[in-house]
Amino acid sequence: MNYRMVSFVLGRIFFVEAALLAVPLACALLYRESTWPYFLLPIAVLVLLGGALGLRRPKNTSIYARDGLVVAALAWVLLSAFGALPFYLSGEIPSYTDAFFEMVSGFTTTGSTILTDVEAMSHGMLFWRSFSHWVGGMGVLVFLMAVLPLTDGRAMHLMRAEVPGPTVGKLSSKLQDSAKILYKIYLVMTVLEVVLLCLGGMPLFDSLIHSFGSAGTGGFSSKALSVGAYNSPYAEWVIGIFMLLFGINFNLYYFLLLRRFKEAFFSEELLAYLGIVALSTAAITGNILHLCDNFGQAVRLAFFQVSSIMTTTGYATTDFNLWPSFSRTILVMLMFIGACAGSTAGGLKVSRVVVLFKSAAQEVRRMLHPHAVTTVRFEGKPLDVRTVNGIGAYLTVYIVIFAGSVLLLSFDGFDLITTFTAVATCFNNVGPGLEIVGPMGSFADFSPWCKWLLSFDMLAGRLELFPMLALLSPRTWRPHRAPRTAVRL
Amino acid sequence: MNYRMVSFVLGRIFFVEAALLAVPLACALLYRESTWPYFLLPIAVLVLLGGALGLRRPKNTSIYARDGLVVAALAWVLLSAFGALPFYLSGEIPSYTDAFFEMVSGFTTTGSTILTDVEAMSHGMLFWRSFSHWVGGMGVLVFLMAVLPLTDGRAMHLMRAEVPGPTVGKLSSKLQDSAKILYKIYLVMTVLEVVLLCLGGMPLFDSLIHSFGSAGTGGFSSKALSVGAYNSPYAEWVIGIFMLLFGINFNLYYFLLLRRFKEAFFSEELLAYLGIVALSTAAITGNILHLCDNFGQAVRLAFFQVSSIMTTTGYATTDFNLWPSFSRTILVMLMFIGACAGSTAGGLKVSRVVVLFKSAAQEVRRMLHPHAVTTVRFEGKPLDVRTVNGIGAYLTVYIVIFAGSVLLLSFDGFDLITTFTAVATCFNNVGPGLEIVGPMGSFADFSPWCKWLLSFDMLAGRLELFPMLALLSPRTWRPHRAPRTAVRL
Repeated sequence: MNYRMVSFVLGRIFFVEAALLAVPLACALLYRESTWPYFLLPIAVLVLLGGALGLRRPKNTSIYARDGLVVAALAWVLLSAFGALPFYLSGEIPSYTDAFFEMVSGFTTTGSTILTDVEAMSHGMLFWRSFSHWVGGMGVLVFLMAVLPLTDGRAMHLMRAEVPGPTVGKLSSKLQDSAKILYKIYLVMTVLEVVLLCLGGMPLFDSLIHSFGSAGTGGFSSKALSVGAYNSPYAEWVIGIFMLLFGINFNLYYFLLLRRFKEAFFSEELLAYLGIVALSTAAITGNILHLCDNFGQAVRLAFFQVSSIMTTTGYATTDFNLWPSFSRTILVMLMFIGACAGSTAGGLKVSRVVVLFKSAAQEVRRMLHPHAVTTVRFEGKPLDVRTVNGIGAYLTVYIVIFAGSVLLLSFDGFDLITTFTAVATCFNNVGPGLEIVGPMGSFADFSPWCKWLLSFDMLAGRLELFPMLALLSPRTWRPHRAPRTAVRL
Repeated sequence: MNYRMVSFVLGRIFFVEAALLAVPLACALLYRESTWPYFLLPIAVLVLLGGALGLRRPKNTSIYARDGLVVAALAWVLLSAFGALPFYLSGEIPSYTDAFFEMVSGFTTTGSTILTDVEAMSHGMLFWRSFSHWVGGMGVLVFLMAVLPLTDGRAMHLMRAEVPGPTVGKLSSKLQDSAKILYKIYLVMTVLEVVLLCLGGMPLFDSLIHSFGSAGTGGFSSKALSVGAYNSPYAEWVIGIFMLLFGINFNLYYFLLLRRFKEAFFSEELLAYLGIVALSTAAITGNILHLCDNFGQAVRLAFFQVSSIMTTTGYATTDFNLWPSFSRTILVMLMFIGACAGSTAGGLKVSRVVVLFKSAAQEVRRMLHPHAVTTVRFEGKPLDVRTVNGIGAYLTVYIVIFAGSVLLLSFDGFDLITTFTAVATCFNNVGPGLEIVGPMGSFADFSPWCKWLLSFDMLAGRLELFPMLALLSPRTWRPHRAPRTAVRL
């Protein structure tokens, strides 16, 4: 590991976070809140640290591609560690464990909260909390598009093989340009949502909060009742549709900009994604019809929660914890599927699920017809065996971490549904689970070590598992002799 | 498909079932119960059908290896369909759906029951119900050792590659001999258990019932409180240990007979199996200590339920549904693992789980060290990629059927734990689940179509997934032109 280069990159990231913290600082000053020093202090610390680490570019800037993953993991952990300071210092979240959990939940765009009274928070803190979703979502896009493809790529079969979209090489020759295009699409869509929400009568502050939350597929709200608090079907449709849009592979928007409409609209992953949303909405509508005033309300409620859970955002317009078992089961399954690869969403991703389904069908076919030659096709192209097996292996690692987390969490003694869905919702970066961690509940009652465990799950889920495992591997921290397959940044 | 040969084999199986039904018939006569005609009638039907189909051996006895799987699936379905007649005709189980469910549960050695008052059943019926476990267990051994290896074997990587034990070819040149050896081991162990239970003061009838249940890793009891009814630590230890023994790969017993002790005792699967039992017992003992009178009782209770659930038997000596979440979570996870390949147990099997864990670890290692050459080793030998991928594909098919079943079952509106564990326990051939289907509960309250669904799950789980899928595939039923890779029986 090139320690000097790694600390240089982290130093730069500290500068960025200092700049980001200036936004909620401004917000606090604007609302004349006394909490502004609690933003200023972390900013000072970050600038100092950034100055110490990030000013002098080291001579040897080459690092192992794998170290890129470690840097990504470190960046997410440290951003959260420093980002939690305002909450903790101001006393608005008295426990540092809780503050860290909340911040990890923000940057990983999960949206699980330990707050039991969100409306008691100051504007500055609420803004920072939701702004972290938006920043995290941006970070994820860059991570997916720029960092992961640099590695050998065994973890990210998703970006390399299944998605036909422009990868770094194709999109532009420089990472920075590629990131810029994505940022622009992301920014324009967010602004559009803010404008639409304001037009519907939602206050600007609330519009920003909820647009940040949907753009990053995060789900933090400024209201205890989440989006349901506004009692506005218009706002529900706007947010519901924007969540769905932010769950689509951003490459497809780029295709739209390039006027390559065929590629944009006939993506197999997109069709599967919309198909699952439509089917789930229909099934839940039928299942909750008797609980609603009319058919229109049932469709609206069903669509909003389906869009929210499948995109792993986590907003709610009703307490779906009180829905019948069938609807609740559908929602839990959607948590695992997640939205499209190349979006800000968590979960396994639709493309992986489609490939897994297809390989299962192929295995059955092969068993029944041993002499038939079969290949798994995705997006019109045959997938090589290595990609399919890689996704299978990803699933296995996923299950191992998931089962281990459920077992450890069950030690806290909550009921099994709370335990299972708490891990499911954190690991898939959704936000709410069922029962105690339901949409109107919180994670406040878990013991501190369980909150650290769930923070790990959120980070592992967000970074496609491997970076967090690399961070914990002792071999990562041994010095190398000389980089063999290094990437020059 | 060679229809004539398939009906010939099924005809022979009808004869066998007629002979098997004579045993509970004798039992009913012995206890002077009026239910004996309800055994005689199905016997007559089976003899007639067997005579029509199974007397004349067809000239062309070659069938596709794949058709062997279909025959196995058909055999299990038809054995259950006819075996359910005594329950139904006698009125002791008034609904045919319930009777079929109970019989499938018997032959698949699951042990899930729809009976709410088992002690009201006549001796003959109780005997037949438990005897089906014992017969089913025998059938499973032959299926695993003799039928599956005949096929291309993609489903049964387990027997071919992971387990170093004698496969058909090695064990003996003829299927019949191989089956005979296994039957003898099975019979001797069962008799031993009956004798030990009788010595402890359990009535002969009850000893038989519970030995059948442990040998087949089934779990039907003649008591509402299951093994807990006897209040006898001696019986609990005997049954607990015998369940554990019947969960071991039968090939290892054969090695013992051959005095190849090293191979018998240093099986990686065996060590993993015993290790998981020991760890789970220790963890649960600690977790339930405060609920018990003393340490000894806690160990006994923990060991018995762990042995019962992991071997997918399903007996209980306490209502573990009332245990803390941690213990309940461990038990649910053990359901999925199951016991060793080549035993009468259900579940994924320890060897598959070990290989999946190892391949996950390998994938992590490969991600961190792209240039390292790694192979997955099992039982001291490197596994070829095809085997590892086959097990991964098996897991995917498993998850698809499991998730689909949970979704469909949730439509019945039971709570999620009941729904999830009902599928888990049936699909893994365990018996009891949690909540409504807990060890002291029953499956009586599910709607008829859910009982058919769970019956399908029991059969699919029992036959390693593929035979039931082959049975449902329309292509299976199209006539072939000429068998290319046929096996002469």
